[in-house]
Amino acid sequence: MKWSKSYLFTLREAPADAEIPSHVLMMRAGMIRKVAAGIYTYGPLALKAIRRFEQIVREELNKRGCQELLMPMVQPKELWEETGRWQEMGEGLQKFKNRNGHEFCLGATHEEVITDFVRKDVKSYRDLPFNLYQIQTKYRDEIRPRFGLMRGREFLMKDAYSFDRDQEGAEGSYQLMREAYQAIFTRLGARFVVVAADSGNIGGNRSEEFHILADSGEDQLLVSEDGLFAANVEVCPALLKEESGTASSDKASVQGGAPEEFATPGLKTIADLAKSTGIGPEQLVKTMFFMTEAQEPICVLLRGSDEANPVKIKNALRLANPPRLLVDQEVKDLTGAWPGSCGPLGLKIPIYVDQAVERMDNYIVGANRDGFHLKGVSHRRGDFKLTQVADLRMAQEGDPNPQGQGQLKAYRGIEVGHIFYLGTKYSQAMEAQFLGEDGQLKPIEMGCYGIGIGRSIQAVIEQNHDKDGIIWPPSVAPFHVHICMLDPDEPAVQSLVEEVEVALTADGYEVFIDDRAERPGVKFKDADLLGFPLRINLGSRGLQQAEVEIVERRNKSIIKVSPKSLVGALLEKLKELQ
Amino acid sequence: MKWSKSYLFTLREAPADAEIPSHVLMMRAGMIRKVAAGIYTYGPLALKAIRRFEQIVREELNKRGCQELLMPMVQPKELWEETGRWQEMGEGLQKFKNRNGHEFCLGATHEEVITDFVRKDVKSYRDLPFNLYQIQTKYRDEIRPRFGLMRGREFLMKDAYSFDRDQEGAEGSYQLMREAYQAIFTRLGARFVVVAADSGNIGGNRSEEFHILADSGEDQLLVSEDGLFAANVEVCPALLKEESGTASSDKASVQGGAPEEFATPGLKTIADLAKSTGIGPEQLVKTMFFMTEAQEPICVLLRGSDEANPVKIKNALRLANPPRLLVDQEVKDLTGAWPGSCGPLGLKIPIYVDQAVERMDNYIVGANRDGFHLKGVSHRRGDFKLTQVADLRMAQEGDPNPQGQGQLKAYRGIEVGHIFYLGTKYSQAMEAQFLGEDGQLKPIEMGCYGIGIGRSIQAVIEQNHDKDGIIWPPSVAPFHVHICMLDPDEPAVQSLVEEVEVALTADGYEVFIDDRAERPGVKFKDADLLGFPLRINLGSRGLQQAEVEIVERRNKSIIKVSPKSLVGALLEKLKELQ
Repeated sequence: MKWSKSYLFTLREAPADAEIPSHVLMMRAGMIRKVAAGIYTYGPLALKAIRRFEQIVREELNKRGCQELLMPMVQPKELWEETGRWQEMGEGLQKFKNRNGHEFCLGATHEEVITDFVRKDVKSYRDLPFNLYQIQTKYRDEIRPRFGLMRGREFLMKDAYSFDRDQEGAEGSYQLMREAYQAIFTRLGARFVVVAADSGNIGGNRSEEFHILADSGEDQLLVSEDGLFAANVEVCPALLKEESGTASSDKASVQGGAPEEFATPGLKTIADLAKSTGIGPEQLVKTMFFMTEAQEPICVLLRGSDEANPVKIKNALRLANPPRLLVDQEVKDLTGAWPGSCGPLGLKIPIYVDQAVERMDNYIVGANRDGFHLKGVSHRRGDFKLTQVADLRMAQEGDPNPQGQGQLKAYRGIEVGHIFYLGTKYSQAMEAQFLGEDGQLKPIEMGCYGIGIGRSIQAVIEQNHDKDGIIWPPSVAPFHVHICMLDPDEPAVQSLVEEVEVALTADGYEVFIDDRAERPGVKFKDADLLGFPLRINLGSRGLQQAEVEIVERRNKSIIKVSPKSLVGALLEKLKELQ
Repeated sequence: MKWSKSYLFTLREAPADAEIPSHVLMMRAGMIRKVAAGIYTYGPLALKAIRRFEQIVREELNKRGCQELLMPMVQPKELWEETGRWQEMGEGLQKFKNRNGHEFCLGATHEEVITDFVRKDVKSYRDLPFNLYQIQTKYRDEIRPRFGLMRGREFLMKDAYSFDRDQEGAEGSYQLMREAYQAIFTRLGARFVVVAADSGNIGGNRSEEFHILADSGEDQLLVSEDGLFAANVEVCPALLKEESGTASSDKASVQGGAPEEFATPGLKTIADLAKSTGIGPEQLVKTMFFMTEAQEPICVLLRGSDEANPVKIKNALRLANPPRLLVDQEVKDLTGAWPGSCGPLGLKIPIYVDQAVERMDNYIVGANRDGFHLKGVSHRRGDFKLTQVADLRMAQEGDPNPQGQGQLKAYRGIEVGHIFYLGTKYSQAMEAQFLGEDGQLKPIEMGCYGIGIGRSIQAVIEQNHDKDGIIWPPSVAPFHVHICMLDPDEPAVQSLVEEVEVALTADGYEVFIDDRAERPGVKFKDADLLGFPLRINLGSRGLQQAEVEIVERRNKSIIKVSPKSLVGALLEKLKELQ
């Protein structure tokens, strides 16, 4: 493909709203263009990379007996009401009415549609198991779309659904998809980890996420030193570093007395309070307030040094979605004090307590009176009532490995895949049943499995780039070889370029030829930006000296070969890179 | 692929709402399943056919220098307002608001998005020409979705857009796409015609449609005997059969007198009136009423024997969309009489007159009084005022060829492709400009080109089927060879099946194997329904007699070959069928 015949416009600068390198580079390389917030047009180069990745996904799924179909993006309300998710999905589910007043949504996921599809066909255990998948456009009304394809509103996804007779079969299907995903991301050529994860509002009993590691990743991952345990921080169990109590949990001090109010004027934060009292944050208690989707406020107590984990709170309370933090005015209305002076005493709402706080005693909390705190507080004495004790805090780097020896190490990742064992959540709600060998009607055991196609491509760029541009892994590179024609009008240059293109194309590689009338410097800069694995610099002077430069994009190493051995050298290099 | 490993459930009967054969057959073959009215899931077999057709489309477009990209389905109101089509597209454009109150629509077509994409990149004449296309899901809120994929709400389309420096270039791009479409539908293996067409609310100066011929086609096409003229009836010029006036256009009779009312009780239709008066329908005048999108009623006069052509009325009045026929009550409110007794005299609304009526004189029209008509009416005398005379009727089979000798012949077709020369309608409205060689800013010359992907597949089935099932053209057949294993447990049968599968797969063909434990009759019936080009009947008895049957689906011809020569015979037959 010649640049002069391509629709390709590179940019020197990306728009200001491109915040992370991969977003900047995709904009600059003409791969994506914003149509509206979180909604993009994919240019020809992006689409080539996407198609290559889709092909890898298809091959690995088909190899494992999965079958491809295509479900619609527009889905009727009635199906979503059968599972209760019409409400439960919240405002992220984009709903609308048609001209006849019928209600629809744009598919953000397809459990309802596939379960409906399958229940019409499946009758007997003989019809099971099977796994159906699609590669399709999804839509979610993200509040704050950002980072290009990382958190978009409209996005390309592969979603697969497995259907089995029993739990054992479903477990096998889950493992098979786990293997498929390992194979897919390995072939993609990305560094990735698999972590335990929350099931969100997909539901089910077990789920794992596949993350491409990158510093700008939105998710924090905690991995044990031996690599055998890995979890998204959202669900990573938080163990205490030492089993001993804190200094303030001195039983004796609890015996008598009652909480005593003291003035803390102007102390708004845990840090302020720690500084003023000389007591470490891990020995202070922090009072937070959240609102559930049922519009019920709750109080959460944590150590001053800890961070609340909304997903753990959601799971402890069996909510469909993580609760929302109250804004300052709501806190004031609820407690009589602004945040910073609030505490659990005298509250009329449920109080959820992190397990690290449960072990504490004789501690300081806000007095629910602006500028005052209470000291000598003890839930053991009944100063306030604990509704429930649970693990509600974010685990941290350095926390003990919950499944073995050593400590946890923190990484940042971009979630590109997610696999769920669903059980019978959808098949029971929608009566997707089959007649078992024993003559009994049973709900089908299901699993579901997603890969963000566009996001994977951007994540690969986020992980593989340098200051000059993209460094494509050969697996999904739009083109494999980039020829900079330094003298595009020179017949000898033209004929060698054509020879290279014909030979490499015959071997299944794709060649991009910069035949523009531009200076070499401009061409080299664009070649680095576009980032195809190998570049050739081909000009009259080199040919006169019987020398052609092959530049490897990843490390910018240069080898010089004779024009005669160019094709052979390229093929060898390409094989090496695979 | 073995049936036992496939997700494939055939049906004996299709649901009652499947009205035409292709819809029935696609339902019965498990190719599509309804999710909501006009919204379908495509099963694995349908998707295979679709993907094959997409590949043909891609190859023919790429060969001609077109480049593939992918635009979003969700599009912001702002872009559509730039061209005025946010209003003009009417209720077929599905609109909605997101959680922040921003307005969007689902893309029914992508002129606005592609023009926006291009205007951000193109600066100079050196950046032109180019042609960009996508294969993507579109949505239109059809009032009455029907016939499966023929008139669906959600549908798969290939849409391409050409961008040129000037009209000459744009004409060349149009012709190149016309050639591409000819090649695409020829490779598809369908009988098709190209006809002159209306531009609808896409706009532009010239357009042609590609129709797959089929009796159930929604469009009527008129083709000259020499084949050089072809038009959709919507735009086919209607010429009069003879140049002589009608019997009633007797100048003498107009001289004196005035229209005279006479009683026509119970005569509601032109046929009634013709019978009662003894005057042929072609000598009577029919009065019809329509409402424009600006909510202005208009009157249209036609010969009693003619049918109104809403597209011609739209074009004569320069409306964006065809006008709507008034309902009876609206007519009564407007004229004082129910339809059947209405006429042009005394009306206060514009009166549009078909050119065949313009030549008439001394005729009968309704009196705008129930049960009465007027005779001796003459517009020449000024009985009423003609707002405009134009060709407003449907041309018919037998009408003169408007561009040559002979008569027109009628066909029915399914529109599967449509090409438009747009001119600068969109580039002017959206300021998609470039700096010409002369240093002047100019709007880009555009064309747009669509192919209904899903509809093409169904149209092929509509054209190619018999009472037993589908007859796939090999170009898009999901599988090429269907093996009915008559004794699936017999090792000799199994090993021959495997040999055939391996050999044909190596040659790029796909083999479907019915390995179910079913009776031969059931298998043959399903093979006929699924309709792959060749079937092999393979059982123990045949093998003992060293005989395998190869059945050609199209004509059910059977040849018998020895097991040894089976692979060779199949390959030869498949080559023949291409």
